[in-house]
Amino acid sequence: MKTMQESTIVFAGDSIMDADKMNTYDRLGNGFIRLVNDGLKAFRPWEAYSVVNAGISGNTSADLLGRWEKDVSSQKPDIVFCMIGTNDVWRHHDYINPPSRWLTLEDYENNLSAICEKSENIKKFYFMTPYYLEENRADRMRAEMDAYGDAMRKVAQRFNRPVLDVQARFDEYMKHRPGQSINWDRVHPQGIGSMIIARIVLETICV
Amino acid sequence: MKTMQESTIVFAGDSIMDADKMNTYDRLGNGFIRLVNDGLKAFRPWEAYSVVNAGISGNTSADLLGRWEKDVSSQKPDIVFCMIGTNDVWRHHDYINPPSRWLTLEDYENNLSAICEKSENIKKFYFMTPYYLEENRADRMRAEMDAYGDAMRKVAQRFNRPVLDVQARFDEYMKHRPGQSINWDRVHPQGIGSMIIARIVLETICV
Amino acid sequence: MKTMQESTIVFAGDSIMDADKMNTYDRLGNGFIRLVNDGLKAFRPWEAYSVVNAGISGNTSADLLGRWEKDVSSQKPDIVFCMIGTNDVWRHHDYINPPSRWLTLEDYENNLSAICEKSENIKKFYFMTPYYLEENRADRMRAEMDAYGDAMRKVAQRFNRPVLDVQARFDEYMKHRPGQSINWDRVHPQGIGSMIIARIVLETICV
Amino acid sequence: MKTMQESTIVFAGDSIMDADKMNTYDRLGNGFIRLVNDGLKAFRPWEAYSVVNAGISGNTSADLLGRWEKDVSSQKPDIVFCMIGTNDVWRHHDYINPPSRWLTLEDYENNLSAICEKSENIKKFYFMTPYYLEENRADRMRAEMDAYGDAMRKVAQRFNRPVLDVQARFDEYMKHRPGQSINWDRVHPQGIGSMIIARIVLETICV
Amino acid sequence: MKTMQESTIVFAGDSIMDADKMNTYDRLGNGFIRLVNDGLKAFRPWEAYSVVNAGISGNTSADLLGRWEKDVSSQKPDIVFCMIGTNDVWRHHDYINPPSRWLTLEDYENNLSAICEKSENIKKFYFMTPYYLEENRADRMRAEMDAYGDAMRKVAQRFNRPVLDVQARFDEYMKHRPGQSINWDRVHPQGIGSMIIARIVLETICV
Amino acid sequence: MKTMQESTIVFAGDSIMDADKMNTYDRLGNGFIRLVNDGLKAFRPWEAYSVVNAGISGNTSADLLGRWEKDVSSQKPDIVFCMIGTNDVWRHHDYINPPSRWLTLEDYENNLSAICEKSENIKKFYFMTPYYLEENRADRMRAEMDAYGDAMRKVAQRFNRPVLDVQARFDEYMKHRPGQSINWDRVHPQGIGSMIIARIVLETICV
Amino acid sequence: MKTMQESTIVFAGDSIMDADKMNTYDRLGNGFIRLVNDGLKAFRPWEAYSVVNAGISGNTSADLLGRWEKDVSSQKPDIVFCMIGTNDVWRHHDYINPPSRWLTLEDYENNLSAICEKSENIKKFYFMTPYYLEENRADRMRAEMDAYGDAMRKVAQRFNRPVLDVQARFDEYMKHRPGQSINWDRVHPQGIGSMIIARIVLETICV
Amino acid sequence: MKTMQESTIVFAGDSIMDADKMNTYDRLGNGFIRLVNDGLKAFRPWEAYSVVNAGISGNTSADLLGRWEKDVSSQKPDIVFCMIGTNDVWRHHDYINPPSRWLTLEDYENNLSAICEKSENIKKFYFMTPYYLEENRADRMRAEMDAYGDAMRKVAQRFNRPVLDVQARFDEYMKHRPGQSINWDRVHPQGIGSMIIARIVLETICV
Repeated sequence: MKTMQESTIVFAGDSIMDADKMNTYDRLGNGFIRLVNDGLKAFRPWEAYSVVNAGISGNTSADLLGRWEKDVSSQKPDIVFCMIGTNDVWRHHDYINPPSRWLTLEDYENNLSAICEKSENIKKFYFMTPYYLEENRADRMRAEMDAYGDAMRKVAQRFNRPVLDVQARFDEYMKHRPGQSINWDRVHPQGIGSMIIARIVLETICV
Repeated sequence: MKTMQESTIVFAGDSIMDADKMNTYDRLGNGFIRLVNDGLKAFRPWEAYSVVNAGISGNTSADLLGRWEKDVSSQKPDIVFCMIGTNDVWRHHDYINPPSRWLTLEDYENNLSAICEKSENIKKFYFMTPYYLEENRADRMRAEMDAYGDAMRKVAQRFNRPVLDVQARFDEYMKHRPGQSINWDRVHPQGIGSMIIARIVLETICV
Repeated sequence: MKTMQESTIVFAGDSIMDADKMNTYDRLGNGFIRLVNDGLKAFRPWEAYSVVNAGISGNTSADLLGRWEKDVSSQKPDIVFCMIGTNDVWRHHDYINPPSRWLTLEDYENNLSAICEKSENIKKFYFMTPYYLEENRADRMRAEMDAYGDAMRKVAQRFNRPVLDVQARFDEYMKHRPGQSINWDRVHPQGIGSMIIARIVLETICV
Repeated sequence: MKTMQESTIVFAGDSIMDADKMNTYDRLGNGFIRLVNDGLKAFRPWEAYSVVNAGISGNTSADLLGRWEKDVSSQKPDIVFCMIGTNDVWRHHDYINPPSRWLTLEDYENNLSAICEKSENIKKFYFMTPYYLEENRADRMRAEMDAYGDAMRKVAQRFNRPVLDVQARFDEYMKHRPGQSINWDRVHPQGIGSMIIARIVLETICV
Repeated sequence: MKTMQESTIVFAGDSIMDADKMNTYDRLGNGFIRLVNDGLKAFRPWEAYSVVNAGISGNTSADLLGRWEKDVSSQKPDIVFCMIGTNDVWRHHDYINPPSRWLTLEDYENNLSAICEKSENIKKFYFMTPYYLEENRADRMRAEMDAYGDAMRKVAQRFNRPVLDVQARFDEYMKHRPGQSINWDRVHPQGIGSMIIARIVLETICV
Repeated sequence: MKTMQESTIVFAGDSIMDADKMNTYDRLGNGFIRLVNDGLKAFRPWEAYSVVNAGISGNTSADLLGRWEKDVSSQKPDIVFCMIGTNDVWRHHDYINPPSRWLTLEDYENNLSAICEKSENIKKFYFMTPYYLEENRADRMRAEMDAYGDAMRKVAQRFNRPVLDVQARFDEYMKHRPGQSINWDRVHPQGIGSMIIARIVLETICV
Repeated sequence: MKTMQESTIVFAGDSIMDADKMNTYDRLGNGFIRLVNDGLKAFRPWEAYSVVNAGISGNTSADLLGRWEKDVSSQKPDIVFCMIGTNDVWRHHDYINPPSRWLTLEDYENNLSAICEKSENIKKFYFMTPYYLEENRADRMRAEMDAYGDAMRKVAQRFNRPVLDVQARFDEYMKHRPGQSINWDRVHPQGIGSMIIARIVLETICV
Repeated sequence: MKTMQESTIVFAGDSIMDADKMNTYDRLGNGFIRLVNDGLKAFRPWEAYSVVNAGISGNTSADLLGRWEKDVSSQKPDIVFCMIGTNDVWRHHDYINPPSRWLTLEDYENNLSAICEKSENIKKFYFMTPYYLEENRADRMRAEMDAYGDAMRKVAQRFNRPVLDVQARFDEYMKHRPGQSINWDRVHPQGIGSMIIARIVLETICV
């Protein structure tokens, strides 16, 4: 039997990763994670990756922290991609919960720090910035999302972890077409956005 | 048998009116038109209104003009409420069609004028402005929606028809909560927005 | 983050409130409670209400009393609306159970009293009369329903709680159209009746 | 092969006969007509009846007259049972249509007469009175239903056809239990009422 | 509230009683038990019967005995109708199980005796003979069914309980039409057979 | 490409052949015809048979004759197996139609003759006897089925066509187990009977 | 009651046996085991076999060994047919799992030996070779499958158990048609292959 | 409104393109064409491609030729990708049709030539070779597929059209993993193969 390099990659996050995974036979979902998995197998068939989708729809940084051991550490991952924060911000704008139950920017930073502490023995750990598909940086939700991205960068620096700037890539796209051309809600990446995110991930893994 | 004042009210427009009407037993849909119908019956039981939902999801001003005789005039309405234009604008931002197939502001004005000409013998005819649930008037899609609202006002003035300023009512709301608190896509009014629109219509009918 | 006045409103009752709530994503049902919730958010966006539908189809006053702690008190409500009794009466007329299992008027009064005792520390507590959509007060079921409404008023007075007279509002309506124009069963309020009840509640909250 | 007396019996009417017939394999529905059919086969196996359910939900006397040739005469029936009128009356009380579209008592009489004229060569033709499951004869809908029953008797006498008094049988029942114990809408006969109607029909056929 | 005579009637048996009861809202099934229930309510509205369907498809006398306390005694019935044995016999002819697992006539007698012993304090207890819709008494399955009917009579006599001869009634029917005209399997009574059985039961209760 | 002997085999008959064919991807059904098709392909892979299921549930000899050109001749078959008559007989015993619409033994003979005339240029044409899974030859339906088998043999002899005696094979089986062990209705062959019929056909084709 | 020879036959294996058994009323599945069961009952009605399908889709030799007591021994079988190994080999070619989790040929031999040890008191125990529907023996997956067949023969010889050479029978078939004519995946036997395997089993049981 | 370069790309072929397109809202299917479409929009947002999936499952070169005008020419495409032939070959190996209905290599060449003639005014036309996911070139189906690829190249050269060698790319992949790791049937490309094909197409368009 052949010897192959084997690694486990875990994606930790929210609905952008989840992508209806519970209705797919291999629990990979129908989003960018499937593209990453298929791309790795198609273009690097001499390696063996086990890809795990640990995204759950609606999760905030607090939710993700709360299930980190059970869903991420327990997989003994070689590589982790962590993209979280969209729902922390969104809840301030859609008022699904009353304000007294909102998470603050400070909560977000603390949650990311706690995640980093629980991940010290993971060899490769990448943060991915939350993003908003609105080109106008003065827009209230975009401005807040950028502030959360900055907070992520601050935490990452403290723990010496790289950050993949997903928002920047979408800003490139939005020079040509508005965010609504990806999705009317300006958050879920659908086909086009998933291609863009998958490419960022594949470039990171395959350097 | 009682004698009652009987009138037929037709609502002509797009998905904001349609509201999945084909899946409701009385073809009134699940949106603001149902609220208007129930409100009229509940609070003015001494009158008899026949309410017709002539909204079809995805319609532009060109689509609505194309079916005006079949769906509106044929009902011999006493009162018409016409709210259209959202999809004329939206298609410039979500790129569902390539640019060569887009409708222009000039097309919009011409279509509204043609609708007015076909409606001369309708006693009460109200335009309702298209709207976008974005408070920032510099936002590209909001700015364009406002321009379309202005075009509607120009046509209405020429034909001497009143215009109900739906956008203005939502601007009041957005002083307190962002547009996403109504719907993430900032267009479809869901429960909250339907209440706001229904109130405008009921105030207009019941003066 | 904004500071808003936050209150929790619980509606305690039977199918008139329930309105198929378990099949709606937010457990608010499709009846008057949804109208109240949407109306509050649409017209008072500067306040934050949490609305809880604690109605269960088929409940009598005994059933409601039996789950009061679990479903009402546990919510720590600021405001409670309690409308119950329809099924206490109805069972005497549809014979779903044999007579030996019927609840009496005395049972009803005792159950309402017990509910009031469990609710002493709720700031605002409103009873709403059970009603029957039959204009003829000599009708056997209407007469009995009126007697139950009187019993409710008696208990309310003892505990110094206001009573909203829902039956009176429907009597206004029935001056113009028979009760069957709301629903053939003369009980469930459907679209029209829900509008009427929601208006009573909104007038009460928003004074 | 045996020689048996063969007859065709057609039931002409509305939803009380229809009883969801299109969802039953033999188009007999789930109401009193099935009981009649099963009873005839069970207790008079030496005869061969072909039973036809020609009831359609929502039909008024005008609807039934309009399809008489197609659905009744075309069957060349030996026996016809005709029960119609409930919807003529009901529409005056539930306001599904505005008053200008209501049928009057005079329309009803004319429609019944026209039906009789088209049925002259049918050997046995029975009218069955429309009924309302309300014991109080002063109730507005009951009073109107009784007037329609009287009109039916008047027409029947003119054409020398017998009338089966269904209302009278239900009045017997309502000496013991209210109409709601049969059905909350006081019209559709469900299990109990179907038994009562089937018995009337079987007694008529099997004398 | 009225005083009515109230009794509980339990039907204990197999699929002839069960009649898909778990898919009916009141667990009465779609067979003869529903006819009995509706007939009692329709024609004796001054009494109050609680009817319980304790039939389970596929049951033999051993199965029924095994659940007698749980399903029959626990109801504290005033009246019991027990019809069992069809499956004891049928299994000898369809070979669903291999012969070593078959029940014998002796098992049947013992099971019926045990049932009688457990039912001593039930005021009215009726056996109903198992039957086979085959007119030829020399047919192997018919002959065996008759032997089981005789065994039932023997046990009944010992415990001084009446036996309703269902087979005899079907024999009357089969003088005119073959058993297949009721059901191709010659066992399940469908519409026609249910009428015949219900009549036997109603005559017994209503004497 | 290989040269193979190619033949088209058409099976003409009723539900015994049909076997729910419209719900199978290749229209072969789930009965004995599938076994024949699979058996031919499995055990004679050097030949190429096209198997056509031309059975339709409920067909009598008259129905089959009526569609012979459309469904059989049009296939230009090399081999035809024709098994019909079960429903001609069955209708005399289940009374689905009143006696005046029954087919007689004479009708049956005439229909078979007409089928033979239309099939003169088919090289191999086999009749298969209708059968009844009742061992007692004095049973009324069995006796009639045997008479129909005799009529088939008479017609076959006149047209010089072979007859496969399916009833005889089932009689062998019934020396050991009753007909009900194949199917409670004693007609449809299910798994066991389909094996027996398929074997008869395969022995005929593969001699 | 008759005395018949009764035996229990258990089939232990993978999806080739399973054949969607959980969706069939008797848990026999839709594959060769059903053909065996029907064939035994059709052609040897004087004996009584209880056939048990203990195949589970996706099972390797390790999976089967792990549930041997629970699913096979517990049935106290008279006869066992054991066909396993396809998935042991397949996983080396479809890479569903990474190589570190593959089973080796040595694992396979050990698992078969352990199964034999647990089966010593079973009177008749037959191995059936795993097979691959590829005629070219140099094909990598075919070559490996043959090696596993050889390993099975080695173990069988040690425990003195017969081996049925299923691959050989399919090789006969493939002299005339390629493996893809049975199934595109060259493994699951579908209709044609099930016929071939069932024949091998029936010849073995019925000698 | 922006001016963008707009082109229409049509994909003409079989199930490899179809990919269940009729069950996707935009008729693009779930295969490599969706990846191409999303990739073009994601990475070249300054251009506007209209992508048309004209693949139909099961199509041979004859089927495709038969619908060329209706499905391809009618779109007035700027670019066409044509991949066909898999089913021409496959039918020789799975025997779905008898040999007399098979297409030959000569048919294939003629069909491709006719397609080229109908496509002369299409600016960019690319053939894509049919492929088989079997690394062994001596395998009978692989050998035949290679011959068809050669025929395609011959036709392409005659009409001066480029050929994309899809088989060659899969051969690269199969140096590391067997064809079964893409799909057990070695034809449909699933996730991994779709990635590989999409990349070939994107490289061709985006040079």
